[in-house]
Amino acid sequence: MMQRLRSSDPGFARDFARIVRDRRESDESVARDVQTIIEDVRLRGDEALAEYTEKFDGHVPEDGNWQIPLEDCREAFDALQPELRAALELAAQRIRAYHEAQLPEDRDYTDAIGMRLGARWRAVDGAGLYVPGGRAAYPSSLLMNAIPARVAGVERLVMMTPTPKGEVNPLVLAAAHLAGVDEVWRVGGAQAIAALAHGTKTIKPVDVITGPGNAWVAEAKRQLFGVVGIDMVAGPSEILVIADAKNDPQWIAVDLLSQAEHDPVAQSILITDDAAFADQVADMIGVEIAMLPKAKIAKASWDAYGVIIVVDSLDEAPALANALAAEHVEIATDNPEVLFDQIRHAGSVFLGRVTPEAIGDYIAGPNHVLPTGRRARFSSGLSVLDFMKRTSFIAGTDQALAAIGPAAIALAEAEGLTAHARSIELRLGI
Amino acid sequence: MMQRLRSSDPGFARDFARIVRDRRESDESVARDVQTIIEDVRLRGDEALAEYTEKFDGHVPEDGNWQIPLEDCREAFDALQPELRAALELAAQRIRAYHEAQLPEDRDYTDAIGMRLGARWRAVDGAGLYVPGGRAAYPSSLLMNAIPARVAGVERLVMMTPTPKGEVNPLVLAAAHLAGVDEVWRVGGAQAIAALAHGTKTIKPVDVITGPGNAWVAEAKRQLFGVVGIDMVAGPSEILVIADAKNDPQWIAVDLLSQAEHDPVAQSILITDDAAFADQVADMIGVEIAMLPKAKIAKASWDAYGVIIVVDSLDEAPALANALAAEHVEIATDNPEVLFDQIRHAGSVFLGRVTPEAIGDYIAGPNHVLPTGRRARFSSGLSVLDFMKRTSFIAGTDQALAAIGPAAIALAEAEGLTAHARSIELRLGI
Repeated sequence: MMQRLRSSDPGFARDFARIVRDRRESDESVARDVQTIIEDVRLRGDEALAEYTEKFDGHVPEDGNWQIPLEDCREAFDALQPELRAALELAAQRIRAYHEAQLPEDRDYTDAIGMRLGARWRAVDGAGLYVPGGRAAYPSSLLMNAIPARVAGVERLVMMTPTPKGEVNPLVLAAAHLAGVDEVWRVGGAQAIAALAHGTKTIKPVDVITGPGNAWVAEAKRQLFGVVGIDMVAGPSEILVIADAKNDPQWIAVDLLSQAEHDPVAQSILITDDAAFADQVADMIGVEIAMLPKAKIAKASWDAYGVIIVVDSLDEAPALANALAAEHVEIATDNPEVLFDQIRHAGSVFLGRVTPEAIGDYIAGPNHVLPTGRRARFSSGLSVLDFMKRTSFIAGTDQALAAIGPAAIALAEAEGLTAHARSIELRLGI
Repeated sequence: MMQRLRSSDPGFARDFARIVRDRRESDESVARDVQTIIEDVRLRGDEALAEYTEKFDGHVPEDGNWQIPLEDCREAFDALQPELRAALELAAQRIRAYHEAQLPEDRDYTDAIGMRLGARWRAVDGAGLYVPGGRAAYPSSLLMNAIPARVAGVERLVMMTPTPKGEVNPLVLAAAHLAGVDEVWRVGGAQAIAALAHGTKTIKPVDVITGPGNAWVAEAKRQLFGVVGIDMVAGPSEILVIADAKNDPQWIAVDLLSQAEHDPVAQSILITDDAAFADQVADMIGVEIAMLPKAKIAKASWDAYGVIIVVDSLDEAPALANALAAEHVEIATDNPEVLFDQIRHAGSVFLGRVTPEAIGDYIAGPNHVLPTGRRARFSSGLSVLDFMKRTSFIAGTDQALAAIGPAAIALAEAEGLTAHARSIELRLGI
């Protein structure tokens, strides 16, 4: 059952440390299977893809054609119910606007000694977007992955998605049309990631692969990191809600459940300074959970991983939040800025009483692909930078080389790299 | 022996594709050994570290003290020959200046519907710097890793370095003092990376690990990616020199050798539009190589991986450069900008006849930790961003939520996430 802690209890430090330490990630040992699949796709290409797709998805594409025509995506989009279509368009527009402002600036300057220095940002040539089949096939997720790539200037956007028994998700196809995906392939699993990284006769390789997936997909991305760029390893979602007693307990209960309904191993944590409010939220969770279509998932998550922490003062919350480094942090107080200023580690922060986390999942604009499992200590949400890279440059002059060349020669000689030193000496006429 | 190609030859496309495809990376199968070491350090901590250090480095620290006192680093710095000390200080100052200008700006704005959006960049709490023992223990490399971390605002900078039979490299200690490293530990190999990632009783864990290392170190970083952040997987170095016949062939020969002297598997490639010039460079390499203290390494590299490509026109060079996506690209022409503008994939570019690559290795300012093995297609040189992460934020108002909440509700319902929809509905009084 859900854990309840009090920060003033003697065992709190130990119990809290255990929550911080606990990884909810499956350690399913899929590494070896994935390695086999990757090698197989690398060596046998399309033939291996066909075999794995028949085996795992029970599907053999007609005429051996693995591509879903872009025409089908456009038709799916046109067939959307108008309200949903408008919602997707509004989401796409707001996500695009937020990410356009992320585009980095090039640098180009000449310093005091006359050395020209700088850096240029360029998009990668091709990006692969993985879209899971089944439960986790979310059109919102497609927009959040595809739009930053497009904004970055990626010219080729390739979507891979499993179509078990041949079935496709029309919402996902519609989102692919809206986001401007260039190719859609009916391939899933580790074999799809291998095809994106190494390429096959029919599928050209890409440079960066993003998007959520099951344990096989995640492990394939991890193993191919370095052959291609990948987004951060993703684990189950989590939310930390910091709330005082002036909130409506029902609102806070539903916010906690909006995380729990994602996944039986999602985690929802409430920090409050009011024990009676904590009780009200816990009760309201019991009421609300019963009404959810995903009640079973939400209950499994809340019972196994839900935590309520009662603190003496919300001033204690930032230190706890930094230790948890949660994916989502809601600060539902009158003046959330005070606590936010002390939070160093979080994927995304939702400020105030009328900013439920769900607004960020769909439509606010910032990316909903965020670091999980305490990775906000060192990583960031998906951005245009994940689809770009920087080339630094240096342009010397005789005068600039004369100014700093001798120091470089001294260092090269100290490191025993004589040709390095000599390449400068020759130009200085030494 | 060194390969020589002509772009007008019928077999060129095939031969060039092979050069692009060839990976020079050792595929030593160290994965299983590394996995064992990591698990062992995670479970048995300092005890495992002591055993591996005795086994691999033949060293048992006095009094079980694994730390090298910062005082020793200061002493090593004070004992430097004045010219070398000044050179290190100039390098540190220029590296710092270049990286300070990389610091990203926070964003905080309110959009047309009254939604406040933005992102804040913060440094990671702790960074680990690996410094190899032996041949590759370069003080310049320590500066290139430590200074960006310091500039990013990292509060705890931990250096790990093996000290075989107890021997330390005084130049590296001096650089550690100059860069302001906070802790120096006599531990190397995969065990050092495991200790940095998981922590032990005496060594607190860090959040990001950077720095070069052998195959074990690289594999340990790869396996621990996700537990901590790491810099890009690094392979052997490479240089591509694009040069016309107006260059001094001796200069170009030495530039090519400055890469070759690093490593028997380093790669040096020359693209020129003049066959006679190509001959002169090849001859001059023969002359110069004999004079190098590292002649054996340079010769092994040039013979096995050296390439000279003669093109009809240097206009062909950018396409070849983009396919190679080399770590270092020198453009030794009168107007290098023309070619540079067409180069999309490169770690760092050196423009003009008086900008030898070595100037970037030591003193120009940009980072010398750069993507190798065609990874410039999707990754960048080390920067302050590797030691920072971004927290996005959203602050709604009743009005903003009314404007976009209904679209989010429509999307949440389409995805079957009822609690998501409800968290917005409750606040809208729906």
